[in-house]
Amino acid sequence: VTKLYDKERILRLLTYKGILLRFKTMGFIRVFSDNIAEALDISSSLVRKDFGIFGISGNQKGGYHIDNILGKINGILGTNEMQKVILVGAGRIGQALLHYKGFENDGINIVAGFDTNPLIINERTEVPVYPIDKLREFVKKQKIKIAVIAVPELMALPTFEILKEAGIKGILNFTPTKIKNSSGIIINHMNIEHELANLIYFVNQDLSQEQNVIPQISN
Amino acid sequence: VTKLYDKERILRLLTYKGILLRFKTMGFIRVFSDNIAEALDISSSLVRKDFGIFGISGNQKGGYHIDNILGKINGILGTNEMQKVILVGAGRIGQALLHYKGFENDGINIVAGFDTNPLIINERTEVPVYPIDKLREFVKKQKIKIAVIAVPELMALPTFEILKEAGIKGILNFTPTKIKNSSGIIINHMNIEHELANLIYFVNQDLSQEQNVIPQISN
Repeated sequence: VTKLYDKERILRLLTYKGILLRFKTMGFIRVFSDNIAEALDISSSLVRKDFGIFGISGNQKGGYHIDNILGKINGILGTNEMQKVILVGAGRIGQALLHYKGFENDGINIVAGFDTNPLIINERTEVPVYPIDKLREFVKKQKIKIAVIAVPELMALPTFEILKEAGIKGILNFTPTKIKNSSGIIINHMNIEHELANLIYFVNQDLSQEQNVIPQISN
Repeated sequence: VTKLYDKERILRLLTYKGILLRFKTMGFIRVFSDNIAEALDISSSLVRKDFGIFGISGNQKGGYHIDNILGKINGILGTNEMQKVILVGAGRIGQALLHYKGFENDGINIVAGFDTNPLIINERTEVPVYPIDKLREFVKKQKIKIAVIAVPELMALPTFEILKEAGIKGILNFTPTKIKNSSGIIINHMNIEHELANLIYFVNQDLSQEQNVIPQISN
């Protein structure tokens, strides 16, 4: 039976994996929940609770063996085998993602890009960029389930339709277009503008509150 | 007195702004909460509740005047005036952000990049890229409060220290490094790998559950 964990917990699991890989490169063989908690600025009881829920066990004295935890985490995430991902829209953001080297640790392999611009299409680059009309066949042949959308905003909806037709099951959407989805496809949004605007809002609130602080009376 | 709204609500406000701008370019002058709700795939009662909390009023019959709502939203977000932002790390992701045209609607202006690589530093480009040792002076002179970090992972912590020293108040961090922060600086993380790995996890769960579905008996 498959257990479904919530998104926050899975994101935390990915963070644990990242920090454990870093501990490992530093020569550590075992870690304690306190090590992980301090590095991530969270409570060690949360780390232990998460590990309990995921069935990761250690002992109070000896801590956790890093390789054991990593194997368990990879098993849960399904990242023991590489996951093939395609990208649609090989403009600046798209090109940056195609050439990004950091995905491998998380079992992610961007195997191809697709675009409509003949100047961008190039099948001989390290990660080939094909014309968009080859997408459907490629997805079927390679059994691709995941796609990244990094097209201009106006192309977001037509691109979604193409991906849906091709049988894609999950989409990471870098456009600001919120895609209405009644097809069971999982869509995650990476809205850079909104994250930045959000940050600006909270920084400005913080600064205006600083100015309103009641001065301390020293005695 | 300054009201502090939670992050989810502010992100929704940004989404409202995006869809209202799109309605406006389509020639709309007024909208109803149902229009917004349908376009965003949320309930219209949530839209009305948000508008109520933000003090945006309309009337049942005539709906809301788009320009009125936009003015109000910009007032809340502080995006009536442009917010100057700097970027550290002008590699592929950084360059993509420096050239991204979508920020203006949200009142965001990336005014400069900073890097250590002499091949990347170029003060004559549309958005100049300066050597990192000019950052502090630039931040002070231009009164910059917000920075984006798009450096290689190992440079994340030293970059954070430089930004802290310079007096930066808010950081959008594109590196996978989780920055421990006891300095009151607001740090938002954009972790592309983790979003993608998270998506892969949920898609795989979905697919394995599909295979377990009890077949319908047709009669």
